[in-house]
Amino acid sequence: MDPVISEQAVREAAARIKPLAKRTPLLTSRSVDRRAGMRVFLKCENFQRGGAFKIRGASNLILSLPPEDLPRGVVAFSSGNHAQAVAIAAKHVGAPATIVMPADAPQSKMQPTRELGARIVTYDRFHEDREAIALRITGETGGTVVPPYDHPMIASGQGTAALEILEDRPELDALVVCVGGGGLLSGSATIAKAIRSGIRVFGVEPELASDVFQSFAKGERVTIPPSDTIADGLRTPSPGKFTFPVIQKLVESILLVTEAEIRETMRFLMERMKIVIEPSGAVAVAAVLFGKLPPGIASAGVIISGGNVDLDFLKTL
Amino acid sequence: MDPVISEQAVREAAARIKPLAKRTPLLTSRSVDRRAGMRVFLKCENFQRGGAFKIRGASNLILSLPPEDLPRGVVAFSSGNHAQAVAIAAKHVGAPATIVMPADAPQSKMQPTRELGARIVTYDRFHEDREAIALRITGETGGTVVPPYDHPMIASGQGTAALEILEDRPELDALVVCVGGGGLLSGSATIAKAIRSGIRVFGVEPELASDVFQSFAKGERVTIPPSDTIADGLRTPSPGKFTFPVIQKLVESILLVTEAEIRETMRFLMERMKIVIEPSGAVAVAAVLFGKLPPGIASAGVIISGGNVDLDFLKTL
Repeated sequence: MDPVISEQAVREAAARIKPLAKRTPLLTSRSVDRRAGMRVFLKCENFQRGGAFKIRGASNLILSLPPEDLPRGVVAFSSGNHAQAVAIAAKHVGAPATIVMPADAPQSKMQPTRELGARIVTYDRFHEDREAIALRITGETGGTVVPPYDHPMIASGQGTAALEILEDRPELDALVVCVGGGGLLSGSATIAKAIRSGIRVFGVEPELASDVFQSFAKGERVTIPPSDTIADGLRTPSPGKFTFPVIQKLVESILLVTEAEIRETMRFLMERMKIVIEPSGAVAVAAVLFGKLPPGIASAGVIISGGNVDLDFLKTL
Repeated sequence: MDPVISEQAVREAAARIKPLAKRTPLLTSRSVDRRAGMRVFLKCENFQRGGAFKIRGASNLILSLPPEDLPRGVVAFSSGNHAQAVAIAAKHVGAPATIVMPADAPQSKMQPTRELGARIVTYDRFHEDREAIALRITGETGGTVVPPYDHPMIASGQGTAALEILEDRPELDALVVCVGGGGLLSGSATIAKAIRSGIRVFGVEPELASDVFQSFAKGERVTIPPSDTIADGLRTPSPGKFTFPVIQKLVESILLVTEAEIRETMRFLMERMKIVIEPSGAVAVAAVLFGKLPPGIASAGVIISGGNVDLDFLKTL
């Protein structure tokens, strides 16, 4: 039987991933609270191992693989953070890793993956299908695909970020999470609602990559053309087959933020909170800073999904 | 009787400053450990209220003032972080604050102080004596001077940063702390040695402002000409009358770092740890990253003193 995403699965993931994932701090800032008009607790997954939450899901799946499968290796397709996470977890268990990455992924994401000993195969994200490339490789090697979001073990692993938030702050009114393919959002919503049924859960995505917003409105999975949002981690063309029903059931609404709001949030957090976040990591925070949440929320846990950004990009802020 | 700096004074400060100072996280990074060749625990005072450790000392003194003194206000002279700290603590107790700041202090330090409602008086740090200006003001107003470092209440307050480090990691071999006037170093050395007598304590300062290094070597306080080190918080011309004897007694040695090492450390921590630190905040970390510590140290607590830096400066890294 395939595993499902459930409170139990997230709690099991929390125990399993301990050797690889850090418990990241929940930071606060009066400047942020003032601007948001509520108490904001920022879960700093930019300080996570590999610089993003992705190690939670990747290590949950990879640490569950039968030992006899490890020599054939693991294969992942990713715009970057998931790649690095898979490379870290694969190295930990001694499995060779092959990563299929877009040729235009930021160097800040490609370089550390290479340094971890992973083999990188690049592709053109406007004309090639990364999933097909990954399947061709596993066809040759017999390795295991570690999908970036659409797998119960991945989503359950990502949900441990929300579990830690609720452990630290069980009284929160809301949880605000960025959404690309929906692994982090579906896992987080599942555990948050299990612990605190009244918590309001929001997904946030860039206006320029609003596939989940459109899918949510239409009641079925919508596919959008490749997007050029600066939030490179959220360019997925559609929500996952597995993650979308969970989002439909547990998430109150999908909020949208502009590219300018993402940039301004990155700048504001650097200046006021002294933290470096990547564009995708700014998306959920931007929703809070720019008043996208409905009224009646006094406190929110907000996940900063990652911090892997080329320093040259920061200059453009 | 004047208070002295002691284990007891630091512990009292820890209780007193709770309404104003945060308990900051102690972050770790495999990249930093690898480069330093030891386990490094970074105390992130860049996340502290006001963006630096200074709120610890300023609030310890200001929260101890007799209520009848508050209407006459407080006066501080500071290159920046202490200014903001005094403004925050003064606002908290309802005392008017006047801050004497160098005219060339970074905007990132001047602006927040102004926003907190403090009156700012600027001076030319190459030709005017800030202490004399502060004394003239208190002569007129009857206010209380809150010195930046050379006062037992200030040094005891700053020592709470080291107290928190040792509470989190009681097994550390060494403590590495930047030194300007010596408030943070004397307070930290006092509490660290009281808790763990075998801990090795190091001060670090920029080569371009080596007054404490020279004083330590000579066995008496040396005054140097005004310095232009990028570590603007450490430009003090001499160690304090009060702080220096404590440093002489408890600190093993004063280490020096170059301007290039400070810059490289700022860049490395932005890139690998996703944190923004100011040049002064990088000084202690630079000593660890560039191998300035003697051999035989397997783990060190290192204080990142602050994160208030103009974003334009970061572009030059």
